[in-house]
Amino acid sequence: MALLVQKFGGTSVADLDRIAAAAEKAKQEVDRGHQVAMVVSAMAGVTDKLVELTSGANPLHDAREYDVVVSTGEQVTAGLMALKLQALGVPARSWLGWQIPIHTDDVHGRARITDISSGELRQRLADNQVCVVAGFQGVGSDNRTTTLGRGGSDTTAVALAAALGAHRCDIYTDVDGVYTSDPRIVKPARRLSRITYEEMLEMASLGAKVLQTRSVEMAMKHGVPLQVLSTFGKAIGSDEPGTLVVDEEEIVEQELVSGVTYSRDEAKITLVDVADRPGVAAATFGPLAEANVNVDMIVQNVSEDGSTDLTFTVSRADLNRAVGILTERQSELGFKRLVPDASVVKISVVGVGMRSHAGVAQRMFQAVADKGINIQVISTSEIKISILIAEEFAELALRTLHTTYGLDKP
Amino acid sequence: MALLVQKFGGTSVADLDRIAAAAEKAKQEVDRGHQVAMVVSAMAGVTDKLVELTSGANPLHDAREYDVVVSTGEQVTAGLMALKLQALGVPARSWLGWQIPIHTDDVHGRARITDISSGELRQRLADNQVCVVAGFQGVGSDNRTTTLGRGGSDTTAVALAAALGAHRCDIYTDVDGVYTSDPRIVKPARRLSRITYEEMLEMASLGAKVLQTRSVEMAMKHGVPLQVLSTFGKAIGSDEPGTLVVDEEEIVEQELVSGVTYSRDEAKITLVDVADRPGVAAATFGPLAEANVNVDMIVQNVSEDGSTDLTFTVSRADLNRAVGILTERQSELGFKRLVPDASVVKISVVGVGMRSHAGVAQRMFQAVADKGINIQVISTSEIKISILIAEEFAELALRTLHTTYGLDKP
Repeated sequence: MALLVQKFGGTSVADLDRIAAAAEKAKQEVDRGHQVAMVVSAMAGVTDKLVELTSGANPLHDAREYDVVVSTGEQVTAGLMALKLQALGVPARSWLGWQIPIHTDDVHGRARITDISSGELRQRLADNQVCVVAGFQGVGSDNRTTTLGRGGSDTTAVALAAALGAHRCDIYTDVDGVYTSDPRIVKPARRLSRITYEEMLEMASLGAKVLQTRSVEMAMKHGVPLQVLSTFGKAIGSDEPGTLVVDEEEIVEQELVSGVTYSRDEAKITLVDVADRPGVAAATFGPLAEANVNVDMIVQNVSEDGSTDLTFTVSRADLNRAVGILTERQSELGFKRLVPDASVVKISVVGVGMRSHAGVAQRMFQAVADKGINIQVISTSEIKISILIAEEFAELALRTLHTTYGLDKP
Repeated sequence: MALLVQKFGGTSVADLDRIAAAAEKAKQEVDRGHQVAMVVSAMAGVTDKLVELTSGANPLHDAREYDVVVSTGEQVTAGLMALKLQALGVPARSWLGWQIPIHTDDVHGRARITDISSGELRQRLADNQVCVVAGFQGVGSDNRTTTLGRGGSDTTAVALAAALGAHRCDIYTDVDGVYTSDPRIVKPARRLSRITYEEMLEMASLGAKVLQTRSVEMAMKHGVPLQVLSTFGKAIGSDEPGTLVVDEEEIVEQELVSGVTYSRDEAKITLVDVADRPGVAAATFGPLAEANVNVDMIVQNVSEDGSTDLTFTVSRADLNRAVGILTERQSELGFKRLVPDASVVKISVVGVGMRSHAGVAQRMFQAVADKGINIQVISTSEIKISILIAEEFAELALRTLHTTYGLDKP
């Protein structure tokens, strides 16, 4: 007998039929003798509508009231899921954030879970009742409902799994696992049966939108085995495997590179001929940080004549704001020209295997050079190499690198 | 400075524009120096959709989960109303049933309020913050959300007004008060400026669906002055008067009859030639009561040959069920035939003035007789006379009686 947490995202509970299919997944595990806690998202599209209403009521909305409104989506699904489980003959009840309670800090709209009182849930689980927990919500020290930010139901699921000491946290979603690359672009992309937390983190933050980054961090910290699998598997009971996200030790044959990802949410800014004196970088990035503009890749190069260019990337949504902020400070920063470019894409290869292997980066640079693709910016971490290239080469670069690292094999 | 409770029903908060108009009404009172607590319903149509979802998930739904789902409608409106008030520069926050808390019994789906902890609300009101309370909901002793049954937001408003010792409870709705009769049928029907709680109770239970019966009972018990007025009054600030529901003493010129109402939700059953022995009525109505079939008017008459007919009314929705229950017991009850008739209407004249005046009933019977309308059943209370007639005469009877009691005058 195991204790499982199952999380169902918005497309997996989009209507009553899908809610029924999700309830069947829980029933299957109950029938096998397992204890099951479910975490549910709002039905697909509901949260967007609620957000639209709050913006309509007050564009500069009070995050506390925003939370009151948007948290109702998960509440509805939780009640419906409990009803559907009961209809299948499975004892079940819904649990809201304030009832468990799932304590959070008071940062409404993007709160963090501080503690989960799991006592009553444990007792219900031991009584073989399925506990259906509304995801994405908790209660702050002010006794008001908080929400955890977009994708927060993943975090609820992992935090709950950690609090309950669950054997596994199954994330049911509309994809059937984590792939070596985007199968819509790279035909031979394969589903990975296992991946490490670290790789998943890099994948998540690089645009493979399978799991919320914070939930992966939390799973890694508490050693919760995560499984990503599809709700839309063929027949119920077919138990199609998904991707298991685990510690590095649990992966026997580690590939050099696990995946090739891309992100189109990139824009490049080049400050031409900035003043070559101490403090210029700080003066540049300070105001951006204050304005909550996240800067990702940064390159500074000094040419032979002593002039310096500073190039960096921001998300496309922030580009105009960043350009405005910097242009205002042109004389202070002393750059000659500002060149914005939104037609770029970031391509990354990720794999814990590169920690112990040299030459992984070199192979990447050579492969894209062989295709005549110019690398604009490079950044690396311990298990990841990212390059910024012109957007038009995105598909070509993805396919090329997928082949280069031997990921095409069946 | 007064403390006011304002309640806005579903059509008064149907979309963001109407929510804005409601927020303006509250702002007006705040600007006049009053303290304002608002009680809000779900946006029109939302509760129906939520009920449909619960029925779809599980036709025999667990009332506790039903409450989890349907209570979200009011939660959304409360958050949006607080946001809209803030947008108008009025300090405001939303309050859910469990936050105040509004304690109820554990009869989910139609709970009764047992106690309201008004301490924190009083403090916020004293700080000139508008408290926006989600109507229709409370929290049971099991720490789960309860709902108060259809129209329950009226009850929330009156209970809150009683708990806060409010000076008045304003019920904003889509009609602009209580009328002497239905203006769609009786052209000269007039809005009443004042009406007693007792009359309002009779009106409400007789089909003038302005206020939930229970809320009127509660207002009477606690002496909360109720005002029914329209949200859709011409310009904001025009302060169109509505109808004030008050104690009898506060009405100076009491009319003999305040209103003529009708209810089409009636069906008649006649048991022909029932056994004329003790216990027959009990044997007839006992099984109906057990099946939750409400019996309204009852007439038993013994003809000269010693045979007895028993005639009574039930709501149309219950007719088939009632017929089934009685037919099963035909031999036991010993009646010859059962004659159902759904083509009837109940017409009532209501007025506290009839307590001290004789001949009110006689005038009614004469007036309908003069139009050739046959009275099938009569029932009376201290301040009401009801007759059951064929449905086709409904409009004629309403107009005739409106004239008979001098209600046509401008």
